[in-house]
Amino acid sequence: MLTLTTDFGLGDHFVGVMKGVILRINPRARIVDLSHEVSAYDTGEAAFLLAQAYRYFPKKTVHVAVVDPGVGSARRPILVEAAGQYFVGPDNGVFSMILERENHTVRAITAERYFLKPVSNTFHGRDIFAPVGAHLSKGLAPAKLGKRIDDFLRPASHKPVRTARRGWTGAILKIDRFGNLITNFHVDDFPFIQSRPFEMQVGLRMVTRLVSHYAECGPGETFVIAGSSGYLEVSASQASAAKILGCGVGAPVELREF
Amino acid sequence: MLTLTTDFGLGDHFVGVMKGVILRINPRARIVDLSHEVSAYDTGEAAFLLAQAYRYFPKKTVHVAVVDPGVGSARRPILVEAAGQYFVGPDNGVFSMILERENHTVRAITAERYFLKPVSNTFHGRDIFAPVGAHLSKGLAPAKLGKRIDDFLRPASHKPVRTARRGWTGAILKIDRFGNLITNFHVDDFPFIQSRPFEMQVGLRMVTRLVSHYAECGPGETFVIAGSSGYLEVSASQASAAKILGCGVGAPVELREF
Amino acid sequence: MLTLTTDFGLGDHFVGVMKGVILRINPRARIVDLSHEVSAYDTGEAAFLLAQAYRYFPKKTVHVAVVDPGVGSARRPILVEAAGQYFVGPDNGVFSMILERENHTVRAITAERYFLKPVSNTFHGRDIFAPVGAHLSKGLAPAKLGKRIDDFLRPASHKPVRTARRGWTGAILKIDRFGNLITNFHVDDFPFIQSRPFEMQVGLRMVTRLVSHYAECGPGETFVIAGSSGYLEVSASQASAAKILGCGVGAPVELREF
Repeated sequence: MLTLTTDFGLGDHFVGVMKGVILRINPRARIVDLSHEVSAYDTGEAAFLLAQAYRYFPKKTVHVAVVDPGVGSARRPILVEAAGQYFVGPDNGVFSMILERENHTVRAITAERYFLKPVSNTFHGRDIFAPVGAHLSKGLAPAKLGKRIDDFLRPASHKPVRTARRGWTGAILKIDRFGNLITNFHVDDFPFIQSRPFEMQVGLRMVTRLVSHYAECGPGETFVIAGSSGYLEVSASQASAAKILGCGVGAPVELREF
Repeated sequence: MLTLTTDFGLGDHFVGVMKGVILRINPRARIVDLSHEVSAYDTGEAAFLLAQAYRYFPKKTVHVAVVDPGVGSARRPILVEAAGQYFVGPDNGVFSMILERENHTVRAITAERYFLKPVSNTFHGRDIFAPVGAHLSKGLAPAKLGKRIDDFLRPASHKPVRTARRGWTGAILKIDRFGNLITNFHVDDFPFIQSRPFEMQVGLRMVTRLVSHYAECGPGETFVIAGSSGYLEVSASQASAAKILGCGVGAPVELREF
Repeated sequence: MLTLTTDFGLGDHFVGVMKGVILRINPRARIVDLSHEVSAYDTGEAAFLLAQAYRYFPKKTVHVAVVDPGVGSARRPILVEAAGQYFVGPDNGVFSMILERENHTVRAITAERYFLKPVSNTFHGRDIFAPVGAHLSKGLAPAKLGKRIDDFLRPASHKPVRTARRGWTGAILKIDRFGNLITNFHVDDFPFIQSRPFEMQVGLRMVTRLVSHYAECGPGETFVIAGSSGYLEVSASQASAAKILGCGVGAPVELREF
């Protein structure tokens, strides 16, 4: 089993070529597209997607991530082992939310005999990450790919910061297709929200209502809901909260408890 | 064999997560994407897509449809058995065109032991529909999922209405990527169109020409053609009839015979 | 193994239906989407995509291409055998870049017993190309499909033309998702660019710098780079060269050596 996460879109030949490379090495590989619509060069968005998805896949799944603005430069290809699964991609933050959450081993991938030659300077998805992922999916031992390293890119924390006795500042992590604003407040870390009055400020709007499902409110009303990933989301019933509030990824979110 | 139809788009982790859930239950499942680009919350569009596609799939195929504005509310998850295939999704009209056309058995899905726990209130695609579909694809007997019901949502008719001795009022069911306007006039129900003069009014335009293939007319000319689904379509050669006529889904279509 | 390349998009039922047809004939077929986002009716774009991708697939792969503005008219369905692989689609130029590059045998597909009946006039992807591709993937001998022909559509050359002793006029073949302008100058045919001063004019801009990887320049700077397909590309670091230069597919590119 092998998943792909890239910013290649579906209009070019890049994704198809990676699949061809994988299937030539391992004709029995099961390939699942996580997403190829990651915004161009946005390693943070790729990190979020992977972190929401990996736990639903079987042990030994190989996740290949290619959002790689530094392709061809000195940044290293890495293999992360975590949660019984493998993560293959550039050392640029694409695995940061998994590294923050799981025990992990990181290797620099240096074993060129598993690469597609000649290795280009512009498409390591084809020449390095796809073939390495395919070999792993066939059972190659991680140690064959390169040595363990400790100087990989350390993840910045994705958690909200306490800014008052009963106040925290967080951020919008992601806006989904429906316009839901997914914050970095995890419901497990802020359980009071279920039982006590609160205020969540996003843009100019103060949201004070927590609902349990989307259809509970009238159309267009904004509310907070515990999303399927465990993060609090600011949503609107059958409408885009992102449009209503005029907010984007990275916008600050203030939470206050009463 | 298992197909997926959703309004999730391909930019989020939702579709990948559903596939992970399915493959963990049934690693040998063949998953085919029908479409994930259904307009958000548009159960009618999902109903149309499924109705055009199911008959081309093998017996016992499981079709999972997740266009589900009422997720988490009282609307029930259902299993429809029709045409030797299975249809799994919310009881909100997504299967209405199949129910109208085929003999069917409908069950309310209540057997929680096949769900992914804890069941969220916002992502039943992951927690109910994907795992239930996966178990069906492994051979689970439908009766294990829940009791037969009769009070499911009845489909509204999708057929044109006779409004004069030789006149009918129908509607645009769907606009495809090429801008073809797919009407609800089925060529089998209106055979005179092949041999007798007719007028089809869409928007402000009167179309009177029937052609047998797209390249028969000059660029930009509008005409009627029997589409690949059997419905009459208003089309233009290598141009978007939808743009030329300024019409959208649901717009009325008048057909008159002479 | 079977790949699909179409201009159907992912919002309609067309692609899903083709996959259903294929899997009913060959339930063990591995289907890979090359792209369904080819611009509507753009056989040149499909030709480019296929030519960049086929060599990465295993021998005997069947490539099905359906970009087919003439569907239902007199244009013939063809089977091309080249590079140990099969190419199935309309005789309208979709395989032109492969025919230009590889030794080939071309057959007109006439064996109606492998078609899905009744054959529509609007969806040969479903009725001819998908079933024929599926039968080939199961091992059907090409000769069973029809006779060899010589009067297929001859490809126009995709190569630059010499217009001065040290000057050539080429064109933009394709713009990828990142806004890179892929020219028809192949690095193997213009090796001097690696070692000697040159000017490449695209739109109003003169580009004189060759870099080896994208991150070598500051943001927004334009440069020439040998792309992963071997063609010279005009690119900008983490920005769209297409937007900066205001150029589209087909725009002329002048190369001068000093």
